[in-house]
Amino acid sequence: MITFYDIPSQLPQKAWSPNTWKARYCLNYKGIPYRTEWIEFPDIEAKCSSLGIPPTSHKFGKDHYTLPAIHDPTTGISLADSIAIAEYLDTTYPDTPIVFPSGTAALQYAFLDAYLPTLRPFWRFSLPVLADKLNPPSAEYFIRTRSAMWGKSIRDVLPSGEERVEEWKKAKESVGIVDGWLKKNGEGPFIMGATPCFADFFVGGCLTHLKSVLGEDSEEWKDITTWHNGRWKAFLDGLKEYQAVI
Amino acid sequence: MITFYDIPSQLPQKAWSPNTWKARYCLNYKGIPYRTEWIEFPDIEAKCSSLGIPPTSHKFGKDHYTLPAIHDPTTGISLADSIAIAEYLDTTYPDTPIVFPSGTAALQYAFLDAYLPTLRPFWRFSLPVLADKLNPPSAEYFIRTRSAMWGKSIRDVLPSGEERVEEWKKAKESVGIVDGWLKKNGEGPFIMGATPCFADFFVGGCLTHLKSVLGEDSEEWKDITTWHNGRWKAFLDGLKEYQAVI
Repeated sequence: MITFYDIPSQLPQKAWSPNTWKARYCLNYKGIPYRTEWIEFPDIEAKCSSLGIPPTSHKFGKDHYTLPAIHDPTTGISLADSIAIAEYLDTTYPDTPIVFPSGTAALQYAFLDAYLPTLRPFWRFSLPVLADKLNPPSAEYFIRTRSAMWGKSIRDVLPSGEERVEEWKKAKESVGIVDGWLKKNGEGPFIMGATPCFADFFVGGCLTHLKSVLGEDSEEWKDITTWHNGRWKAFLDGLKEYQAVI
Repeated sequence: MITFYDIPSQLPQKAWSPNTWKARYCLNYKGIPYRTEWIEFPDIEAKCSSLGIPPTSHKFGKDHYTLPAIHDPTTGISLADSIAIAEYLDTTYPDTPIVFPSGTAALQYAFLDAYLPTLRPFWRFSLPVLADKLNPPSAEYFIRTRSAMWGKSIRDVLPSGEERVEEWKKAKESVGIVDGWLKKNGEGPFIMGATPCFADFFVGGCLTHLKSVLGEDSEEWKDITTWHNGRWKAFLDGLKEYQAVI
């Protein structure tokens, strides 16, 4: 059985990371048996090293190890990075539903490159809140490293007052670009229509992150569910059967 | 028979515009009979107005009329903008090859949004050269309006010396992003594989523009044909049967 490595939190479902959600959505969609092993932030590097998984990037002058990662005892392969995992699962388990349907990989990669910048305004809302929802070892690590990245305490990244109103407006406009693309298919709820592909799990992973970290009852999440004729609520509702955290 | 409105130049094939090429590729690929009517830059607004075609944008405080445009006497419809024309042709002539295959429209729109910024470094090389290849009425208009847009004479936009080397390096890196996406399909020569879609005509329109304006024998075009394992030459070669200017 595949081991899936994810970062826990104190949220009821434990899962919170947009990146690990992308891989979990793939595993659940494909119906591949797996179990989750929860790894706190400061332990990611040691865990990946012990599995022989190289760093996924080199940032701030040092190697950077990230989750999601999986270990597949059937092939003996361990790897990190949600896109690499999705490609590996498509190739290794071709009888499961494919997330990069034939001919769509180049388009999906371009979609992801175009989609990523549209998320930028949302991080200021979700990351400061997340800091208080991680377990102590991850919280300490997250607050220290993210504060260094932003050049100020991660808690101070959260906009307030008039700036909050402005930033939230930007967030809506930004995801409106994505709504413009999705509208073009007419149908839905997914990017290619009724059947999800990897890009949907990417978008879905980010929406799931926002819903769980901001909180289902937060003003922000309730607002998002009303945007663009309820597109984002319908999108997540469409992914319901792939949302089990196991 | 459809009338297709394009902007002429003194180049042997007359056609040079990346935007009108997108629509010509669609018409040729679909095998829909049409004839080209050549409109000089200063006459575009009057021609579109006479056909009842609204401006495609509002820039610099005024309405902006652009080509390509078509007039279809079968339906009585006239419209501008290459994407709108492609969608119109797919819908109106569903028995011709479709350029937005079912389920791919959202992905193609995202591709175009991600692709457009990768072209930025190329304009400094092609637009100043183009100025000398237009007919006098278009040349005067083009030089005046583009110089205003760039804030300096369009001829001075052309980089030279060390800056030229640096800018050309940027251009290669930029289109390398697109190569990265296309590689993901493994096959080729097109974005979805063997069959072109609208996004291919978009990329192809830009490549055709560069090849004809820079000149097939220019150092720059010869260089481009060697980039990324000859991908861009193979791409244009794959579009050969849709390149007639009629």
